[in-house]
Amino acid sequence: MSESNTRVPAAATGSVRRSRDVPMLVERARDGDPRAVARLITLVESGDETVPAIAAALAPYTGRAQVVGLTGSPGVGKSTTTNELVRALRAHGHRVGVLAIDPSSPFTGGAILGDRVRMQDHATDPGVYIRSMSSRGHLGGLSAATPQAVRVLEGAGCDVVLVETVGVGQAEVEVASLADTTLVLLAPGMGDAIQAVKAGILEIADVFVVNKADRDGADATVRDIQGMIALGERGPGQWRPQVVRAVAARGEGIDDVAVAIDKHRAWLVEHDELRRRREARAAAEVEAIALGVLRARIGSLRDGTQLPALAAEVAAGATDPYAAAEALLAQLAG
Amino acid sequence: MSESNTRVPAAATGSVRRSRDVPMLVERARDGDPRAVARLITLVESGDETVPAIAAALAPYTGRAQVVGLTGSPGVGKSTTTNELVRALRAHGHRVGVLAIDPSSPFTGGAILGDRVRMQDHATDPGVYIRSMSSRGHLGGLSAATPQAVRVLEGAGCDVVLVETVGVGQAEVEVASLADTTLVLLAPGMGDAIQAVKAGILEIADVFVVNKADRDGADATVRDIQGMIALGERGPGQWRPQVVRAVAARGEGIDDVAVAIDKHRAWLVEHDELRRRREARAAAEVEAIALGVLRARIGSLRDGTQLPALAAEVAAGATDPYAAAEALLAQLAG
Repeated sequence: MSESNTRVPAAATGSVRRSRDVPMLVERARDGDPRAVARLITLVESGDETVPAIAAALAPYTGRAQVVGLTGSPGVGKSTTTNELVRALRAHGHRVGVLAIDPSSPFTGGAILGDRVRMQDHATDPGVYIRSMSSRGHLGGLSAATPQAVRVLEGAGCDVVLVETVGVGQAEVEVASLADTTLVLLAPGMGDAIQAVKAGILEIADVFVVNKADRDGADATVRDIQGMIALGERGPGQWRPQVVRAVAARGEGIDDVAVAIDKHRAWLVEHDELRRRREARAAAEVEAIALGVLRARIGSLRDGTQLPALAAEVAAGATDPYAAAEALLAQLAG
Repeated sequence: MSESNTRVPAAATGSVRRSRDVPMLVERARDGDPRAVARLITLVESGDETVPAIAAALAPYTGRAQVVGLTGSPGVGKSTTTNELVRALRAHGHRVGVLAIDPSSPFTGGAILGDRVRMQDHATDPGVYIRSMSSRGHLGGLSAATPQAVRVLEGAGCDVVLVETVGVGQAEVEVASLADTTLVLLAPGMGDAIQAVKAGILEIADVFVVNKADRDGADATVRDIQGMIALGERGPGQWRPQVVRAVAARGEGIDDVAVAIDKHRAWLVEHDELRRRREARAAAEVEAIALGVLRARIGSLRDGTQLPALAAEVAAGATDPYAAAEALLAQLAG
């Protein structure tokens, strides 16, 4: 893998458009060709017709990496923390993939620039793949394409895949559903502790990172979170979320974060929770794909004559929408 | 219809649980019994098993009312405007239904109190139905239950149904998809004009109401909106959104709003747009119901053995999620 190719370009679809080319592309990604990795991620991101073939070719590599979700409100220092975390994981000999998902993230969108600025420390490291993914303005996009993108990185030999997303509304809950271990970043004085409770963050966080811990109010933030954790009901077999202080901009506390991640992984394995989480994840993925197929089939009926005709009948009061839906489904089955 | 029963209670499910009781209930609603109206709305809101039977019984009354959507950020005066608009429509001899949808609305949730406080002017008017509906924390709820609730009110003889919802995120776009005519309320000095552009409000508003028009900045707000409308590309056959000033708290400008609604309705009819909008709405409704049925069918497969077994295979890398989804759909069809 050459130095200049370590950064995975976002728009490298190339000419691989037929399913029969997929095994070769996967083979090249396995050999560490970053262009092949980039093409595969672009294909799964765009929902290309080759996606099922890609998924089939990647299946054997499923589950090889620890998937770490990283979320937090804008301004808590997600990019800096990711950057330092990559450094720490590399120091432990891991191959690391980063998927940065969100329009407002410095990695995302036209964010090759952002990647360069923030992640230039890793630009010459062949053991790091960094890729920004568009969430395409809807949350479904994240859940549909991201598991496949994770598999691409697993196929390319990554031991750890960091999935970074901004903590806004539902997205942070979604990232937790994709990850083995979920980090929630907070910063002092942002009212985040209370927000966390509101957003249900307490339920999804395996590790809280209080970043910018050199600032006023850090002690209060740590105390608030620990208070909330203490209040939460938790059985003897349940994980107790860890709280770690960090100053990512100075690289402080990041090793503690890496230790907490390792500790959580060990706990997951010990309690057979890793298998359980991954099976639940796979079930959700299969369901989402099945629903997508059905939605597409219904959509294709728009082009037929039946849905418009049924809709006209409903609008005119000649039939009701439930009877019309039944007629539509009968056509779908037929 | 007695005075004390005009207010439609939110929790009056009663004993009507079987589909064979539905025609009688619909007949009573047709006769103006507010308790029957309340029960029917509660049943459609809760997704009761009788909903298809209710929809079938109500189908003949579909399309009798003009559905007016009313949206805007918190604090712009939606409740006051709705209140005054009801008064104006009553003065023109219309029977009016109000569906107030949103947890933060004074009508909603435990909002019988809110209803009383805000809408007490209409408490003794048998020509007005007011009902708050929970959006149940997810947007799907609004689109699923509201069209049926509108039909209940149409069945009860309402000429105009106002659907009020707070303008947050996607909800305001959804209300537009339910309505013949969409009013967007703004107030001076809230930065709403710029927000409106961001949220795609310009595309959904048929009438802009600048409320609190006696405040500083009202002229600037009106100018901003008119500027945006002027900038918008619009063919010769397209509606040009109206801008109306109002001070709802003093009842000023509300007649102008009613006139703008009438004008828009006339335009819709003249351009055959009313039929087109309602057919598109019915198509979306039928699709949503069909997808809901399919989702429920997939959900029922969780209880079978196949999805967990398939998920375990996917998690173990023995198969891929697309092949698993195909197997699941084959079971669904079988």
